[in-house]
Amino acid sequence: MKHALLLALFAPAMAFAQTPDTEATPETPSDVIAAATAADWRPIAPENLLVMTMGSGAEVFIELAPDFARVHVENIRSLARAGWYDGISVNRVQDNYVVQWGDASGEKPLPEGVVEQPPAEYHIGPVGRDRFPLTVVSRGGYTRFSGYVRGWPVGTTGTWPTRRGRRIFGIVATLGDERASLIHCYGMVGVGRGNNPDTGTGAELYTVIGHAPRHLDRNIALVGRIVEGIEHLSSLPRGTGPLGFYEEAEQRVPIATMRLASELPEADRPRFQVMRTDTETFRRYVHARANRTGWFIRPAGAVDVCNVNLPIRRVVE
Amino acid sequence: MKHALLLALFAPAMAFAQTPDTEATPETPSDVIAAATAADWRPIAPENLLVMTMGSGAEVFIELAPDFARVHVENIRSLARAGWYDGISVNRVQDNYVVQWGDASGEKPLPEGVVEQPPAEYHIGPVGRDRFPLTVVSRGGYTRFSGYVRGWPVGTTGTWPTRRGRRIFGIVATLGDERASLIHCYGMVGVGRGNNPDTGTGAELYTVIGHAPRHLDRNIALVGRIVEGIEHLSSLPRGTGPLGFYEEAEQRVPIATMRLASELPEADRPRFQVMRTDTETFRRYVHARANRTGWFIRPAGAVDVCNVNLPIRRVVE
Repeated sequence: MKHALLLALFAPAMAFAQTPDTEATPETPSDVIAAATAADWRPIAPENLLVMTMGSGAEVFIELAPDFARVHVENIRSLARAGWYDGISVNRVQDNYVVQWGDASGEKPLPEGVVEQPPAEYHIGPVGRDRFPLTVVSRGGYTRFSGYVRGWPVGTTGTWPTRRGRRIFGIVATLGDERASLIHCYGMVGVGRGNNPDTGTGAELYTVIGHAPRHLDRNIALVGRIVEGIEHLSSLPRGTGPLGFYEEAEQRVPIATMRLASELPEADRPRFQVMRTDTETFRRYVHARANRTGWFIRPAGAVDVCNVNLPIRRVVE
Repeated sequence: MKHALLLALFAPAMAFAQTPDTEATPETPSDVIAAATAADWRPIAPENLLVMTMGSGAEVFIELAPDFARVHVENIRSLARAGWYDGISVNRVQDNYVVQWGDASGEKPLPEGVVEQPPAEYHIGPVGRDRFPLTVVSRGGYTRFSGYVRGWPVGTTGTWPTRRGRRIFGIVATLGDERASLIHCYGMVGVGRGNNPDTGTGAELYTVIGHAPRHLDRNIALVGRIVEGIEHLSSLPRGTGPLGFYEEAEQRVPIATMRLASELPEADRPRFQVMRTDTETFRRYVHARANRTGWFIRPAGAVDVCNVNLPIRRVVE
């Protein structure tokens, strides 16, 4: 089916698209967040939340994306449960690119249950039509459409007739027979790999600390994103070796532990919520991000999928 | 004139656009750089090169862009010549956004000759047609076209009929009656400002250390870019106050001096060269960046204007 992406053009989205940019008191992104109700947020399940504790004690929190890379995520859970990540280190910090961590010796044996060569989980689809609502944020560039699916930045080459020049963000479609892939936005986490057909086990991980390296999309498994604490990685000294690897062993930055929140006592589990992306609230938020006011003289009128800054919040009870 | 941008569609560019991606031994970006001749590079003039020496002794080199922000750049030169920047500090480091430096007290008097309220140099154009050749890299997103003009990343809303779906990078047009603005790519340098009509004097500067914040384009004066040493800024500890400002005076990072290379003895002047962007070599380089091989399984087939990674090299004699 050639036009599988064009399943749903909901009336509320169409109305939204006609909101004038020049209204007297336009909503700011903060206004939208402040007005959001409990139904606009989804919790991060404890089995999808990793707590990485650096040797310094600083904590980095990572949300996993099993919908997009099921086998790689299951491997990462197995490695975390086995305590395999404890005592590894950050070995590579390349400016405007990635921070990478793993076992510097390359000789630490993997625990049982880890799939040594997972499938190439570089895209999803064809998928069931109801499960993956895509809110389109922009089009063109690396993929025909970019947007958010279940809170994740996604690109798709799906064909979807739109009127030329029409503002498109806020339009909700549903991924059906189309393929779609996660996008390497700032803070996304992926699995290092060697040459094809190696897809990486999950023992070596990286995160993006610069302008989205979109040429990596569909070439390597993205498995999640940092939801808090990325500054403990992005501010590390840059490595001076090739590709930003540290040249001396003592430059490596120790990682004390990496634990699944589901393995922690319930009272100790950190709790996060992600703004849902299949809602009118999210569409208003994207609109507000694209049309900043106040200090801004000329609102951009558009927003890159990696500039949406999806609201994610820590919940303290 | 409505179609002022469509002045030149050169035959070589058209031929280039038809180069198949699947040829036996495709050029890599490194191949193109290695094969470039002297004519493919332009020097950075000493009066357009700032040397910022941190309190630690680390050096950061900044190329100025007088073609795009003449008055702001002249202000910066005046401030540098007067030694005004010496002893200021980095006061703000906001993750995935900017590093900002200036006089933390806000009370240091400006030297004579500094224009207190420069014009809003947020775009160029209309301009003479021969002076600004635009090599288009991508289209869509924040502006209709993005590309490089004289070695600088530029967006333009210019109308320019192209065939739908056609690969377009490598096509050279000439900015004529159109307006165009510099783009907030990683490493670009701009002038902090307050509320309109304040455009900033140049006493407060910032650089981008994250995903290109394109919503700033056309809203603030970009005046240059860091050509070497950005890691001395991008790896600084993030500020914990609002907007990433440091909360304690002792957290600020001292800047020892900021000098124009033209003010240094000739033998001490650092020399840099930037790859020219109006050449067949640059078009091949962009093509190679968009179609990475080797480790890559699926070349992207496109490249964002801020992912071009324009080659800039230090020349040591």
